[in-house]
Amino acid sequence: MFKDKYVMGTCYYPEHWDRELWDSDIDRMLDCGISVIRIAEFAWNFFEPEEGVYTFDFFDDFLRLCEKKGMKVIMCTPTATPPAWLTGKYPEVLTSDIDGNKYKHGGRRHYNYNSETYRRFCSVITEKLALHYGDHKAVIGWQIDNEFNCELDEFYSEADTRAFRIFLKEKYKTIDELNRAWGTSFWNQTYNDFEEISVPARIPTAHNPHQMLDYHRFISGSVLSFCKLQSDILREHIRPGAFITTNGMFGYIDNHRMTGESLDVYTYDSYPSFAFGLKKESWVPKGLKDRHWSRNLTEVRSICPHFGIMEQQSGANGSVGGMEGPAPRPGQLTLWAMQSVAHGADYISFFRWRTACFGAEMYWHGILDHDNRDNRKISEVKSFHEKLQKINEICGSDFEAELAYLTDYDNEWDTADDIWHKDLNDVSSESIFLFTQKNHIPYDYVFFNDKTGAEDLLRYKYVIYPHPVLMDEKRTEVLYEYVRRGGILIVGAMSGAKDLRGHCVMKPGPGLLSKLTGSDVKESTFVHENDEGMTASDGKRVFDMPLYNEILTVKEGEENALKAAFYDSGYYKGEAALIENSVEKGKVYHLGGVFSEENLKTLSELIGMKSLTEDIAEVPEDIEAVLRSKGEKKYLFLLNYMFEPEFAVLKCEAEDLFTGERVSGRVEMKPFEVRVFKL
Amino acid sequence: MFKDKYVMGTCYYPEHWDRELWDSDIDRMLDCGISVIRIAEFAWNFFEPEEGVYTFDFFDDFLRLCEKKGMKVIMCTPTATPPAWLTGKYPEVLTSDIDGNKYKHGGRRHYNYNSETYRRFCSVITEKLALHYGDHKAVIGWQIDNEFNCELDEFYSEADTRAFRIFLKEKYKTIDELNRAWGTSFWNQTYNDFEEISVPARIPTAHNPHQMLDYHRFISGSVLSFCKLQSDILREHIRPGAFITTNGMFGYIDNHRMTGESLDVYTYDSYPSFAFGLKKESWVPKGLKDRHWSRNLTEVRSICPHFGIMEQQSGANGSVGGMEGPAPRPGQLTLWAMQSVAHGADYISFFRWRTACFGAEMYWHGILDHDNRDNRKISEVKSFHEKLQKINEICGSDFEAELAYLTDYDNEWDTADDIWHKDLNDVSSESIFLFTQKNHIPYDYVFFNDKTGAEDLLRYKYVIYPHPVLMDEKRTEVLYEYVRRGGILIVGAMSGAKDLRGHCVMKPGPGLLSKLTGSDVKESTFVHENDEGMTASDGKRVFDMPLYNEILTVKEGEENALKAAFYDSGYYKGEAALIENSVEKGKVYHLGGVFSEENLKTLSELIGMKSLTEDIAEVPEDIEAVLRSKGEKKYLFLLNYMFEPEFAVLKCEAEDLFTGERVSGRVEMKPFEVRVFKL
Amino acid sequence: MFKDKYVMGTCYYPEHWDRELWDSDIDRMLDCGISVIRIAEFAWNFFEPEEGVYTFDFFDDFLRLCEKKGMKVIMCTPTATPPAWLTGKYPEVLTSDIDGNKYKHGGRRHYNYNSETYRRFCSVITEKLALHYGDHKAVIGWQIDNEFNCELDEFYSEADTRAFRIFLKEKYKTIDELNRAWGTSFWNQTYNDFEEISVPARIPTAHNPHQMLDYHRFISGSVLSFCKLQSDILREHIRPGAFITTNGMFGYIDNHRMTGESLDVYTYDSYPSFAFGLKKESWVPKGLKDRHWSRNLTEVRSICPHFGIMEQQSGANGSVGGMEGPAPRPGQLTLWAMQSVAHGADYISFFRWRTACFGAEMYWHGILDHDNRDNRKISEVKSFHEKLQKINEICGSDFEAELAYLTDYDNEWDTADDIWHKDLNDVSSESIFLFTQKNHIPYDYVFFNDKTGAEDLLRYKYVIYPHPVLMDEKRTEVLYEYVRRGGILIVGAMSGAKDLRGHCVMKPGPGLLSKLTGSDVKESTFVHENDEGMTASDGKRVFDMPLYNEILTVKEGEENALKAAFYDSGYYKGEAALIENSVEKGKVYHLGGVFSEENLKTLSELIGMKSLTEDIAEVPEDIEAVLRSKGEKKYLFLLNYMFEPEFAVLKCEAEDLFTGERVSGRVEMKPFEVRVFKL
Repeated sequence: MFKDKYVMGTCYYPEHWDRELWDSDIDRMLDCGISVIRIAEFAWNFFEPEEGVYTFDFFDDFLRLCEKKGMKVIMCTPTATPPAWLTGKYPEVLTSDIDGNKYKHGGRRHYNYNSETYRRFCSVITEKLALHYGDHKAVIGWQIDNEFNCELDEFYSEADTRAFRIFLKEKYKTIDELNRAWGTSFWNQTYNDFEEISVPARIPTAHNPHQMLDYHRFISGSVLSFCKLQSDILREHIRPGAFITTNGMFGYIDNHRMTGESLDVYTYDSYPSFAFGLKKESWVPKGLKDRHWSRNLTEVRSICPHFGIMEQQSGANGSVGGMEGPAPRPGQLTLWAMQSVAHGADYISFFRWRTACFGAEMYWHGILDHDNRDNRKISEVKSFHEKLQKINEICGSDFEAELAYLTDYDNEWDTADDIWHKDLNDVSSESIFLFTQKNHIPYDYVFFNDKTGAEDLLRYKYVIYPHPVLMDEKRTEVLYEYVRRGGILIVGAMSGAKDLRGHCVMKPGPGLLSKLTGSDVKESTFVHENDEGMTASDGKRVFDMPLYNEILTVKEGEENALKAAFYDSGYYKGEAALIENSVEKGKVYHLGGVFSEENLKTLSELIGMKSLTEDIAEVPEDIEAVLRSKGEKKYLFLLNYMFEPEFAVLKCEAEDLFTGERVSGRVEMKPFEVRVFKL
Repeated sequence: MFKDKYVMGTCYYPEHWDRELWDSDIDRMLDCGISVIRIAEFAWNFFEPEEGVYTFDFFDDFLRLCEKKGMKVIMCTPTATPPAWLTGKYPEVLTSDIDGNKYKHGGRRHYNYNSETYRRFCSVITEKLALHYGDHKAVIGWQIDNEFNCELDEFYSEADTRAFRIFLKEKYKTIDELNRAWGTSFWNQTYNDFEEISVPARIPTAHNPHQMLDYHRFISGSVLSFCKLQSDILREHIRPGAFITTNGMFGYIDNHRMTGESLDVYTYDSYPSFAFGLKKESWVPKGLKDRHWSRNLTEVRSICPHFGIMEQQSGANGSVGGMEGPAPRPGQLTLWAMQSVAHGADYISFFRWRTACFGAEMYWHGILDHDNRDNRKISEVKSFHEKLQKINEICGSDFEAELAYLTDYDNEWDTADDIWHKDLNDVSSESIFLFTQKNHIPYDYVFFNDKTGAEDLLRYKYVIYPHPVLMDEKRTEVLYEYVRRGGILIVGAMSGAKDLRGHCVMKPGPGLLSKLTGSDVKESTFVHENDEGMTASDGKRVFDMPLYNEILTVKEGEENALKAAFYDSGYYKGEAALIENSVEKGKVYHLGGVFSEENLKTLSELIGMKSLTEDIAEVPEDIEAVLRSKGEKKYLFLLNYMFEPEFAVLKCEAEDLFTGERVSGRVEMKPFEVRVFKL
Repeated sequence: MFKDKYVMGTCYYPEHWDRELWDSDIDRMLDCGISVIRIAEFAWNFFEPEEGVYTFDFFDDFLRLCEKKGMKVIMCTPTATPPAWLTGKYPEVLTSDIDGNKYKHGGRRHYNYNSETYRRFCSVITEKLALHYGDHKAVIGWQIDNEFNCELDEFYSEADTRAFRIFLKEKYKTIDELNRAWGTSFWNQTYNDFEEISVPARIPTAHNPHQMLDYHRFISGSVLSFCKLQSDILREHIRPGAFITTNGMFGYIDNHRMTGESLDVYTYDSYPSFAFGLKKESWVPKGLKDRHWSRNLTEVRSICPHFGIMEQQSGANGSVGGMEGPAPRPGQLTLWAMQSVAHGADYISFFRWRTACFGAEMYWHGILDHDNRDNRKISEVKSFHEKLQKINEICGSDFEAELAYLTDYDNEWDTADDIWHKDLNDVSSESIFLFTQKNHIPYDYVFFNDKTGAEDLLRYKYVIYPHPVLMDEKRTEVLYEYVRRGGILIVGAMSGAKDLRGHCVMKPGPGLLSKLTGSDVKESTFVHENDEGMTASDGKRVFDMPLYNEILTVKEGEENALKAAFYDSGYYKGEAALIENSVEKGKVYHLGGVFSEENLKTLSELIGMKSLTEDIAEVPEDIEAVLRSKGEKKYLFLLNYMFEPEFAVLKCEAEDLFTGERVSGRVEMKPFEVRVFKL
């Protein structure tokens, strides 16, 4: 985003404040190291107050001031919130719930991506902005819309139905092919014509899962198309070198493809304090509290290794209508911003400069509070900027990992429509995150797509693909090649159970993958309430086997496969729970269950997977350790999320980049402290 | 259904599989003893792919194969799932929620029974099928639609409103009579014309309970009319001897009357593994887990003493969208099928042959799994069939019981609209089931209707009618006659409180029933939180008196009535909780509360009600004992639902019909084992 | 309502009963002391059975009987339940949910206040009734509609949208002013025209809180306008001296203004047995069970110091559709009626004479039960009447209190739309009630409005205004004047944070109030989960500080302010939690948190606030003590809500008004007993 140099920014809303404040606001920002601001993502009315009437005076004035003071600007297309005059006159742009109840003016994302009318209005306003500001000296980049699929990620308007039919026609060509793909002979769902199909509607039972899978792919396609519509217009008119981005990471979007097609850089909005909200029930199933955002940042890194944080938490979360968050503790602002940096952010833009004095988010706190006085948060921002200056040499470095967490959008979205798949995936994905964090085995996400080859996987010693339920020949080949050339692949239950349409395959499990795994699933079951605490063992080690169990055996004729663990109780006591297969230089492990922190520990012993930093430092579980490298140089980030001091032990001498001191041995980590060592 | 011979079947969907599989599928079925299959209940499009275009080729081919191989077939009318072309062109056939939101294509039962259009289409397709297959040699019976009122049991379409008005006009003749019946002077609900009335709609408060009671009666009438429409057409065209049935047992249907009017035999769908689903909250209040299905089968037996199971659980429950069930344990498939047999099933048809590879129910497991290999379930089916052969002499025998559980649809449906009635009924019905099961006091349900006479009740030594809140003179007379001639009748709180319109009567409780009970309800109350643990006693025995208490006394002038137990605490300490009345040869007990396992135990001591099998065997609580008789012969079924072995003691020598051995004394019951003894 | 004399009444529905019952009903009422009945609030059809056809025969007959027997009558306008013919022909009168789904006939309050059509029909029927019965000798007063805003208190019909636009135009004059007030630059909500605005609609996120605040003010305005429409018509036609009232106290109504504009007297419906309903979850957060209704009666007293109870609980609560309540215990009926009397009711009308035999409320019990026999409740009513006669001298006396609980509708309604404000207010208002009840520090509510002056507050030694989040200059001045002249004012966190539009002010907290408090809010936060159990102390005393903490300091230049307590832990350990400021003769305490029972105890020690009755009697926490005065005379009510006996100690000799005895020293209070002493 910004070559080899960390940059700090903030989100600013000139339209929320008296003009008299602009001047001092920019001066104060610059004073604490903020050199970039994002503006105008909800400001359509300031550019087109009435249909077809365009005015730029307001933002011209503001940008003139920015240019004068040397403040750089990320300009936004304002399409996330259409004007009242637009939705009032053209109600077809509004989206609906599943019953056709329209969402109205007053919030965000009440439009639908597929409305021809809305796309036309968005094209025009984007072009007008691009033409007017595309060459502006202060404008260094552009954000498209805001947080795609936040608030809503399913859309049921008539325009969506029309677009869905086109999507399906392009995909299936004939209605017969669609009928086959959707298995419409079940419950007499056969269609005679694409015109009989709509987006999912209220029905008395569960939906057709194949239709739903396509629907979720269609949602992603709708977002990508809407994004590209704007990106193409921007690209045509803006200054070369100015970047295009969008922000956030929400449901049913192929962010990897969107970034490839339409963006120069991907940015994320990071709010780890959600972990401390007063309404904790929504958070309870997720472990490690604010440290859990490292999972999200790992996913962001898979989309874009050197990304930006467009909105970095600076104050308490709060929605007037239903969210209460405590203020970040002193040090947490820095901790969370450094968490972003450690995982690959080059740009850190705090949300927001000053807390809004009106509107639904007036308790969503910024750096400054309503009283506009200097406070401990602005001091911390300033100090954070100073720290960034001291570690600029790390900018552009690589994240180190020996383990890849392999997944793909087909399987991710299938969990929305298949509760069995979801149950397994939820437990395994959370467990893998917790186990690897606590044991300092950082991983990269790899999203399997048509371009993914064995060489992408061969960068990793280990690949875990927890539940590749949907599988095809091509992906099987890539995996085979990875293993054949020395990779170690781990898969869990339900692997290979379906094809890409979401049909269960009429093959013994793990379906196509049996070629790699050498395994055969004799039968499977959710763990019965009478079998709680199920385990398996190999004589030396115990694997806990919660939730779901496959009874495995070695596939007939597989000479290199062996039973590596056996169930300890229940009616399948003595049957195999784990199959280990050798494929040329590599190995495949098929665990007949979900992954838990406990069985991952056992499994990692079995396969020799160790802490990445164990030669460098002894790091307690409570500290996150991130290793980055740039050429020969290596950097170690240690992050303390705890409210108490922690201690690590450096096994070699290293330079503390913040203090410049050379240290070794026992190092203290104060509550929320981040230390960065050059090794 | 099948004279004096147990028959085994399965549900098969030729339209879900490659034709190449048909041949081996039928051979494998026959091989394990399956001689009947049910087909086509969701196959409308295979008969009428477009409006008015009829084709039979597909199923002709399939039935030709069946005929050739000697497989018998139950053919279905396919009206549970209308084609997309039908609902698309005639949206008036769709049903709605209470706000008028239409249910759309893609699930089941999205039609409404009262749509004139839909009834027309259903008549035609039924007639076409009856004409085409009515004489087919393979076709031995017909199923109408599928699981009436499953998924939805309330309907709010415009056609329902039109039909409701007709229903009400026929019932009340004049609007004044309706106004009286519905008590419309309350909250100014008076109607001037039937046209002002609709099915229940969204209102800001509770609905008129009298309207709701009629609405639920109307729902039942709608189903019965829809069923009869098809039955009459079938009857006209199908071969004499071929039977007509429908399956399932769901809300707001007078199954007794439907069976009498339209069916030759009633069939039920039995899925006891619901008791072990992962989403247990929906199950928690119901006791004895899978054994609870014996309650359902008891109700089925009241509809049709020798019934069929159209769908008998063979594999794990599972809905892609929201249900997760463990696989049945080895032995459970047999246990659950024998539970059906013990309670009166002559036909056991497993659902389904092979698990679907697509659609919303692809985790609703059949005998075979997706991989189509022989498995332990098919072995168990085969073994179950062998067992059936060994007990064929029991087929057609009678279920033995000294106790009748009396109820009626008016009172059952009133609990839908009257939370007080429901609270009492829920506790009592569950308690009666649990108490009688654990103490081996099997009961028959008797549904009180216009044809029920005292002689129907005199078959039973004891009749419990827990909360006959709605009561009329005629029913009172039948009960009086039962008691006068020697019966023992037990009633609980709120008895006789209302008339059949659901109005509370302006009489001292128990209203009309006071003639039998000799009791007078001075006042009543839900048990106050300060009175938790309320009991009553008679000096020797203690009755627990939870939830609701009536303060009873002997009705003035009743010389044969006496106070039989007295409250032990609270402001009504010392007042009577139980009145015993002698009426000629019989007795009536009026308990001023709900029935609990504990007070039923005390009450049964008082009235001398004992285990039906106590002279035959000592059976622990955990084993269900069912006694059947045929002429002089008696048969004892013992069913072990436990995951551990249990033991019973036979007090006389008996023949174990499965082994042919003569046994007596201590007999072991392995986990899930069923043993059948000829006494 | 009735000068210096307690009057007892009941609610009667002649239309629910056979005419033959009228005579004996009235005789029995008179016999037990009931001299007034309320009738006809749901009887529109009895006056206008068809559009434009008016008949009075039914109620003429009934009122003739009343007149003959000397029974007085409160007549109602029947507008709470429009006839079926009306809503059927004019569906625009129906109200809707937020999605526009109309509520239909069959319940209550399915109309909308703003429908021009409905207002026309209501005007006509009110005028017809007023003309016909305005001079009737039996009719002594009128009730308008029934329980405004019960069942529903938000309305979304098209008529509401039209009226909302007019409301906003009158308030803001220009759309620009509205845009500023609503902060529409947030999320691009700017309106170009009032016609673009509707009542709140479904949006994907939280609503604009400023719009919502105005919407709730609009709701109140709609009720007031609807009430005044009827009141003006009645006033024109009814006999001078006959009073106008309405009943109940529900959401989003400025009852104070409504009473001032349209009513002669305000009446409340008191059902303390809600505290004992079986569905306890809805009640759990509220303390002191039935005694909690003293809070409600305190609010009623603020509206109208000498009020009526139009519906006083006489039997079990019960809705057929979803409410189960136990019968009141012997004595509770009297206790609850005396609770009303102690707090200022001069008229006690029991709901209802006899329990309905039909309709949704047939388990909402009256004095008589369905069986129509004399029972313990009618005995208790009679005995209550005798007690009333013995305390008639107290009628018209004043409630004694040294503490005022200050609040205002702007702040109350803001809590509907601002969850932060609501969180704080819920805890504080409940705690203040509990603390003052248990410690015998009775308070009056004072609702701050445009007419409230310092002299209204100077009647009280202490004023607690727990969270005056919305504040303006004018109110600040009144408060300042109160303090300056010797008052002691206590405020909590978030005070002065917003202006009356609901915008957060760009000032250090507590905003405008800092002039009084001498305090400065440095920062604030919800109490972090790591800081649970937060306290503050002043060296001698400990204040618990739950939920929300402000870090306080003395405002620069405030010489009379001092830090009065300091946080004991957390990152703000040692910072001030309480600021005490002296302003001329008075003092202000700014607590940086919510009020809890514990910190109120500490605070009351600090400021010397004591039990009002401590010189008169020792009263345990479990007894409510109410002191009333009339001229020189003082009366002490003691009310025992407990199920066990309690004891108090009179420190002086007093006359027990029920027994006529003079007593002193230890006096016993039986369970539910009320004793009234003349001091």
